[in-house]
Amino acid sequence: MTVTYSSKVANATFFGFHQLLLRWKGSIYKLLYREFILFALLYTVLSVVYRIVLSEDQKRLFEKLSMYCDKYAEQIPVTFVLGFYVTLVVNRWWNQFVNLPWPDRLMFHISSCVQGKDEYGRLLRRTLVRYVNLTSLLIFRSVSTAVCKRFPTMDHVVEAGFMTPEERKVFENIRSPHLKYWIPVVWFSNLASKARQEGRIQDSIDLQNILNEMNRFRTWCATLFGYNWVGVPLVYTQVVTLAVYTFFFACLIGRQFLDHTRGYQGHDLDLYVPIFTLLQFFFYCGWLKVAEQLINPFGDDDDDFEANWIIDRNLQVSLLAVDEMHMNMPHMTKDIYWNDCDARPPYTLAAADYCIPSFLGSTTDMGSGIKFSGSCTILSIFLMFAGFGSSPPSFLPRCQVLEYFKYE
Amino acid sequence: MTVTYSSKVANATFFGFHQLLLRWKGSIYKLLYREFILFALLYTVLSVVYRIVLSEDQKRLFEKLSMYCDKYAEQIPVTFVLGFYVTLVVNRWWNQFVNLPWPDRLMFHISSCVQGKDEYGRLLRRTLVRYVNLTSLLIFRSVSTAVCKRFPTMDHVVEAGFMTPEERKVFENIRSPHLKYWIPVVWFSNLASKARQEGRIQDSIDLQNILNEMNRFRTWCATLFGYNWVGVPLVYTQVVTLAVYTFFFACLIGRQFLDHTRGYQGHDLDLYVPIFTLLQFFFYCGWLKVAEQLINPFGDDDDDFEANWIIDRNLQVSLLAVDEMHMNMPHMTKDIYWNDCDARPPYTLAAADYCIPSFLGSTTDMGSGIKFSGSCTILSIFLMFAGFGSSPPSFLPRCQVLEYFKYE
Amino acid sequence: MTVTYSSKVANATFFGFHQLLLRWKGSIYKLLYREFILFALLYTVLSVVYRIVLSEDQKRLFEKLSMYCDKYAEQIPVTFVLGFYVTLVVNRWWNQFVNLPWPDRLMFHISSCVQGKDEYGRLLRRTLVRYVNLTSLLIFRSVSTAVCKRFPTMDHVVEAGFMTPEERKVFENIRSPHLKYWIPVVWFSNLASKARQEGRIQDSIDLQNILNEMNRFRTWCATLFGYNWVGVPLVYTQVVTLAVYTFFFACLIGRQFLDHTRGYQGHDLDLYVPIFTLLQFFFYCGWLKVAEQLINPFGDDDDDFEANWIIDRNLQVSLLAVDEMHMNMPHMTKDIYWNDCDARPPYTLAAADYCIPSFLGSTTDMGSGIKFSGSCTILSIFLMFAGFGSSPPSFLPRCQVLEYFKYE
Amino acid sequence: MTVTYSSKVANATFFGFHQLLLRWKGSIYKLLYREFILFALLYTVLSVVYRIVLSEDQKRLFEKLSMYCDKYAEQIPVTFVLGFYVTLVVNRWWNQFVNLPWPDRLMFHISSCVQGKDEYGRLLRRTLVRYVNLTSLLIFRSVSTAVCKRFPTMDHVVEAGFMTPEERKVFENIRSPHLKYWIPVVWFSNLASKARQEGRIQDSIDLQNILNEMNRFRTWCATLFGYNWVGVPLVYTQVVTLAVYTFFFACLIGRQFLDHTRGYQGHDLDLYVPIFTLLQFFFYCGWLKVAEQLINPFGDDDDDFEANWIIDRNLQVSLLAVDEMHMNMPHMTKDIYWNDCDARPPYTLAAADYCIPSFLGSTTDMGSGIKFSGSCTILSIFLMFAGFGSSPPSFLPRCQVLEYFKYE
Amino acid sequence: MTVTYSSKVANATFFGFHQLLLRWKGSIYKLLYREFILFALLYTVLSVVYRIVLSEDQKRLFEKLSMYCDKYAEQIPVTFVLGFYVTLVVNRWWNQFVNLPWPDRLMFHISSCVQGKDEYGRLLRRTLVRYVNLTSLLIFRSVSTAVCKRFPTMDHVVEAGFMTPEERKVFENIRSPHLKYWIPVVWFSNLASKARQEGRIQDSIDLQNILNEMNRFRTWCATLFGYNWVGVPLVYTQVVTLAVYTFFFACLIGRQFLDHTRGYQGHDLDLYVPIFTLLQFFFYCGWLKVAEQLINPFGDDDDDFEANWIIDRNLQVSLLAVDEMHMNMPHMTKDIYWNDCDARPPYTLAAADYCIPSFLGSTTDMGSGIKFSGSCTILSIFLMFAGFGSSPPSFLPRCQVLEYFKYE
Repeated sequence: MTVTYSSKVANATFFGFHQLLLRWKGSIYKLLYREFILFALLYTVLSVVYRIVLSEDQKRLFEKLSMYCDKYAEQIPVTFVLGFYVTLVVNRWWNQFVNLPWPDRLMFHISSCVQGKDEYGRLLRRTLVRYVNLTSLLIFRSVSTAVCKRFPTMDHVVEAGFMTPEERKVFENIRSPHLKYWIPVVWFSNLASKARQEGRIQDSIDLQNILNEMNRFRTWCATLFGYNWVGVPLVYTQVVTLAVYTFFFACLIGRQFLDHTRGYQGHDLDLYVPIFTLLQFFFYCGWLKVAEQLINPFGDDDDDFEANWIIDRNLQVSLLAVDEMHMNMPHMTKDIYWNDCDARPPYTLAAADYCIPSFLGSTTDMGSGIKFSGSCTILSIFLMFAGFGSSPPSFLPRCQVLEYFKYE
Repeated sequence: MTVTYSSKVANATFFGFHQLLLRWKGSIYKLLYREFILFALLYTVLSVVYRIVLSEDQKRLFEKLSMYCDKYAEQIPVTFVLGFYVTLVVNRWWNQFVNLPWPDRLMFHISSCVQGKDEYGRLLRRTLVRYVNLTSLLIFRSVSTAVCKRFPTMDHVVEAGFMTPEERKVFENIRSPHLKYWIPVVWFSNLASKARQEGRIQDSIDLQNILNEMNRFRTWCATLFGYNWVGVPLVYTQVVTLAVYTFFFACLIGRQFLDHTRGYQGHDLDLYVPIFTLLQFFFYCGWLKVAEQLINPFGDDDDDFEANWIIDRNLQVSLLAVDEMHMNMPHMTKDIYWNDCDARPPYTLAAADYCIPSFLGSTTDMGSGIKFSGSCTILSIFLMFAGFGSSPPSFLPRCQVLEYFKYE
Repeated sequence: MTVTYSSKVANATFFGFHQLLLRWKGSIYKLLYREFILFALLYTVLSVVYRIVLSEDQKRLFEKLSMYCDKYAEQIPVTFVLGFYVTLVVNRWWNQFVNLPWPDRLMFHISSCVQGKDEYGRLLRRTLVRYVNLTSLLIFRSVSTAVCKRFPTMDHVVEAGFMTPEERKVFENIRSPHLKYWIPVVWFSNLASKARQEGRIQDSIDLQNILNEMNRFRTWCATLFGYNWVGVPLVYTQVVTLAVYTFFFACLIGRQFLDHTRGYQGHDLDLYVPIFTLLQFFFYCGWLKVAEQLINPFGDDDDDFEANWIIDRNLQVSLLAVDEMHMNMPHMTKDIYWNDCDARPPYTLAAADYCIPSFLGSTTDMGSGIKFSGSCTILSIFLMFAGFGSSPPSFLPRCQVLEYFKYE
Repeated sequence: MTVTYSSKVANATFFGFHQLLLRWKGSIYKLLYREFILFALLYTVLSVVYRIVLSEDQKRLFEKLSMYCDKYAEQIPVTFVLGFYVTLVVNRWWNQFVNLPWPDRLMFHISSCVQGKDEYGRLLRRTLVRYVNLTSLLIFRSVSTAVCKRFPTMDHVVEAGFMTPEERKVFENIRSPHLKYWIPVVWFSNLASKARQEGRIQDSIDLQNILNEMNRFRTWCATLFGYNWVGVPLVYTQVVTLAVYTFFFACLIGRQFLDHTRGYQGHDLDLYVPIFTLLQFFFYCGWLKVAEQLINPFGDDDDDFEANWIIDRNLQVSLLAVDEMHMNMPHMTKDIYWNDCDARPPYTLAAADYCIPSFLGSTTDMGSGIKFSGSCTILSIFLMFAGFGSSPPSFLPRCQVLEYFKYE
Repeated sequence: MTVTYSSKVANATFFGFHQLLLRWKGSIYKLLYREFILFALLYTVLSVVYRIVLSEDQKRLFEKLSMYCDKYAEQIPVTFVLGFYVTLVVNRWWNQFVNLPWPDRLMFHISSCVQGKDEYGRLLRRTLVRYVNLTSLLIFRSVSTAVCKRFPTMDHVVEAGFMTPEERKVFENIRSPHLKYWIPVVWFSNLASKARQEGRIQDSIDLQNILNEMNRFRTWCATLFGYNWVGVPLVYTQVVTLAVYTFFFACLIGRQFLDHTRGYQGHDLDLYVPIFTLLQFFFYCGWLKVAEQLINPFGDDDDDFEANWIIDRNLQVSLLAVDEMHMNMPHMTKDIYWNDCDARPPYTLAAADYCIPSFLGSTTDMGSGIKFSGSCTILSIFLMFAGFGSSPPSFLPRCQVLEYFKYE
């Protein structure tokens, strides 16, 4: 359930990011409140013990311990370790996003190059596309807990229509101790080859392009599986986690407000609430949580990819594209710029500011002889009356441009 | 409205970047002046309160608080957090630029490989190109506020000529709960396939190349949508924002000029204006603003991409290329270097310095037997009299080169 | 034996990474315990010597030495050196993973484009695929100690069925002082070319696609060999190792607890166990161990790639795909969404939360006229009784959806 | 005029980089001497004022100010800001280098696949190649000040032979407010398509390959234009510049040598010349200058790309390749290794050390059965007498190898 | 002469990298010992002068100077500058490795697609491959000092058989002031085109694939030349060198052991040998040496690429592949897994541990219905008696597996 906030940050505004601080879903608060409460609690307990329970001698010892911890807390390189580690995890996360399997490229090819509006043609195209969806489903079941919950057994896969019962039988008869997500791909390539023999795919060029797109799709699937199989080395994750946890363990003791009457350096103020330590807790633990969320983006976190939605979307869209829409195009008619070599789509008043002259290179001001003029473009703005605005379509006729431009 | 300053930085000059500091549009000042005023105001209020309102005891407390804040302000790792975060955001921003959909590759193929200067041929090419533009428009409407303001409804899209009314009906009859930007792509691929059947596209090779370019175009569109959908994880943005805000909150108190008669370390000077803190505000907030501007480059910021201009340019240029310019080439004539195997375009006097011998590899000085000589190239400079300069064309005839070179 | 912990980190939970701290296999503890014991031992010895053996004068000298070491220990830039170095090593490691040779792309092409179910056809396909596996085996033998142990001689390779005895003779008769892993690739390309002449591969398009995939496979192999041949420059590794070792050598002396009665700054507490130094040992040495593990991922480390398993998997799967599965597809039948343009696979109750409306772009809220509605998707959830859950398949019939949704 | 120093750094030698410090062209000194003089001057003025002009009270105030500045100068994160920024700029610079348009790939295809040695064939090939060069010239004129100086008007372009007068007329008749560099590309693709119709290009495969290479060339041009259009965000550049300038402003005051008789900490030595501050000026300003030089690599800096040379080289080489060299190959004769399966090119004595056995994988020492022996290669070195050395060719006959090897 | 140590780091062992510290070839010691001796010498001289030569007053002055230097030495950001710079250089170095020109891809295509075992066919294939090798040789001569020493003149190139005397004449008759490495590529493409006309290359598909591979090869060559031509900007290298040299200049004075009786802070111990400063010298200078070695990897450094070996290998291997091995395949026979759908290559006892079950995705434990079992694979291990081990082949017959597994 990806947390999208693009619309909130479209423009850099007055303290623009501050509104992001007030969200709950997918926020640092939701992720961290439990750890934060625990940390605050432990700090309070220690504070109370120090102030009330301990004897004077014990207090002196605690004070020494506290200063010792504080000194070393500053030496722990949490910032750098986290910086390098989070960069690694974010890169892996984005690469997984980029490798999500979408059947779109393939469905365009199948829709246009596998001929025949009869039932056999439809069956052929639907089956090809179904194999593609089945492949990605099998991979998603292997890597995503969310998909695994939805399709816990192969029965569910059959029931949901991704596989026919007969295919299932063949699938299970193929004996291999390894993951079998590649089986529908073999079916796909053999079926496509058969379609060429039958003349449904016109020639080898069309066939090879479909096979290449299929291989691209399979590589996406295999890449997701690869990321699932070989993660960030465990040792690296442990090193980072240890560093952060050690830092906060040291802070628990080292950031206590010591008796300011004792005159310890930097301890002449008692605020009771260690405001900056708590904020540091938010930075560092939040930073670590970024890694925790993204290290396996196929779970249930707020920022994880919606694998189930992808499965739904892909099935619906790809069946639509290859079956209902096959060779079912709107009638071609002349567009409105026919015989008008200077096509200029109009602007609404609200968008009039976006109408700008064309950038012609940084050297434009230098050359005296460059004759291209962008200045007249500004005249092509199609204005509309602000009052008219609500009832679409509200572009004014093109001939009115110059006049309106004069008056406004 | 991208802020282009390439021409200002073409050469590294005396304090070369300083002129960039004096710009307003797209500048740090324009972005930050409101936050800066607020910060300065708050600082002043606190300063006045400290100096005038507070009692002596309260002053002592405030001084302790101030030094406490100052100490922790320095511990907040703003620099690194910002460094890693801005690098991430800048990379995403540039990847989005690289994935802006341009129909150029496709229009060359359509112009040269979809045959026929008759009306049907024109209709075919214009429709194909229009579908491509429609696809990118649909995506831009989804991701860009600027385009969404220009085309708030599908009526506007039809009115502007990207879609015919009949296409709109077909488009809306296709039932899918998901984004439908891929529908024109299916139309495109089916239409191209039909054109091959009708012999307008000569063979499968041409068709497949067009389909592949179309898929490349679609992938650009899908990538933009992907960046819009899955942003930088919210937690990361929050961590960075919190770090910067906390730092300046701490600075507000911690960087006050304390009574220099009290002899606090580092507080023996009262400048009233905390010049370095204000400059730090500019660095860090400016750095954060870089991220704020670039995190969604499809808004209204000074540095955002001009999506509306791109739409205009693509439509005009692509219609031109496939219709008016189809098989409409200039007559071939012999160029001026015909039978001259040593083509050397002339230089103007102003550019004479740029005429240099060819680099032949770093080992040139070593090998005694390497005979290629670059030294005579320098003689090929075409000079012109400085006084002649204004009336183009001003290259001198080639035979005069050697002589002019002697005298100047 | 890659250590996979993806399932442990699917969700960011309460102190989510802490459970990773408690693993042994592939963990920092397993990697470091010997070094840790040695370090602790040396520290103890020094500590005992200082406290018991040394005379007062010698103690004073040791104390000076200790403070001198401590001061310089802090100046050693271990963090940065390690950060840059580990980033380099991790990138190389992942690139090697990405370049592991998988025959899948090739086997789909061979299965679908090399015709003939007769014995000669089978022989052809099996031989082509075997050559591919042989190539990767020869490379793995060169780079991986694990594979070299399994196939110490060419006899083992022949015995294991990757090469026939006759092929071996030809192989050994080809005289070349260089690595000969490319020989089976030449055989492959010649055999494929011969198959085209004989009509087993239909035309040049099919042939060239197979050759291109073969070249892709070969490039993976060559890349692995390249990484094995040209490693991280030795000097870089030495610099990093020296920095870390020097740091801990300095810590051994510099982090001793000095006599707190002497009033040295920062030495007013005697903990006996230098807890933070030991933790630092874990961070820095752990970080270095990340590099040590990954710098050659074809050894026996817990996180190394399972080259032997890859060989097994590739052989079994690729023979299966080109032989048994060649043109052996399940019978095509209509899928369950035939004539239903709105295919919506059901959800189990456990996954009902994942059923979400479609993201339509960040500008959706802006445009009043965008009519796509995602709200009805929520109704398409297929619920099942929680109690029924155990006996699959447990999706409810589609018509019951609305009703169940009402009651639950 | 790129500054190439590869030959100076071919080997890591004794204080290897020190010789680079003594260059002027393209050096830090040439770039910085003006700023350096200004900085030194200002420092001196301030120093003189402090030492001579100021009264005692003013001196005390100045000293406080100086120490205040010094303290904050150290807090300005110049290093990191510069590190991240320069990395960004260097990456953009290199990407622009990688995207410089070279017609080589295209000219090979045109030379081999556009048939006909008659005049029409020559005209066809020359025109195709000229269009390619024209495209890159138009782009260079837009982005490079050096090229813009050379071709300030379209007249110059025509005069220099890149465009015929007729083409210019057609070019200018095409009305578009946008940059028109794509027009020759349309001509190219249409002309290529016409050549296929006329049988000059044999079939669609050849045509499509030429079109694809053309598109690759166009993409390079468009990429250069993109980098010119969308630069590093202005705010980022301003932030970095502000940081560096502020730092040196603070240094001007803060790094003054204060009266060492006053006993200020760290001010007990008066060197008059602030050697380390001046060196810091060189580091940081030099680092910033790296960015200044590279941010627009198409200007006149010492390290900028030689766009004019590229234009010359491309025109000359590409005309040569497609015209004079078309189907003009040397006669094929047997090479000297005919029927010798073990081709071993000889070594000169000076290079004898480079003759090494082949690397066979890191596991070579493990496997007892690996029989490939690289040891005999060493015998194949062709030695020559050192005294003979000057008169080439100086390889000794092959049969003498073994003997010479014995004696030397 | 690349320094390969992959086999030493195959496993992370007890203090695994320490053995790397004891190498000489390619090591930090070999690279740095001269600089180190010089530094130590200078330090010693200064130390002796301070202790013996200087008068008391001069000593006081020197002490002040020393502390002044020490203070600023710490402010020089050597670590970061080096970190960013070395990362840049290492990336460039690796990119050059990746772009080394290997003819393998091309030779497979030529071997399989250029027909004819007669003399003319052999001549054709050998000539094509020789042109490819010639191209890379010409580039290597331009960029590599090692190759330039081996082939100092074109006579050597002809003599070594890369070029026939006739080709040389044609080559030198082509007049171009620019590097002429592209000429053999034009020959290649024209020769390939001629071969198609003559029917030696079957059709355009084959031809275009060969031309594309040739272009890929040429691009590698051009990329190497580009790296040689446009290096890391000189200013950047100077900045880094200056920073490191300044640091050590400051250390020479600042790290002297001052008279510990004077009570200067941090100077209460006199070790005579500044152990940590010397170690710092090793880190920082070693790090800089990494850059020095890699900045031009075509020289004579221990870690430079073996260009001469590459030339030898490519010539020998590519002639072999296209001539002797053309259509010269081993006879196809049934492999040992014929009709056995479950191919499982055996394991030796030494490698038995590597036999592991297949990873089926991180969600495997969740789904109850996933039936694939990997547990039986363990039974397929082929054991051999440890004693038998020496005489290969030593896999036991397959039927014995279960039994042996029982007993061992």
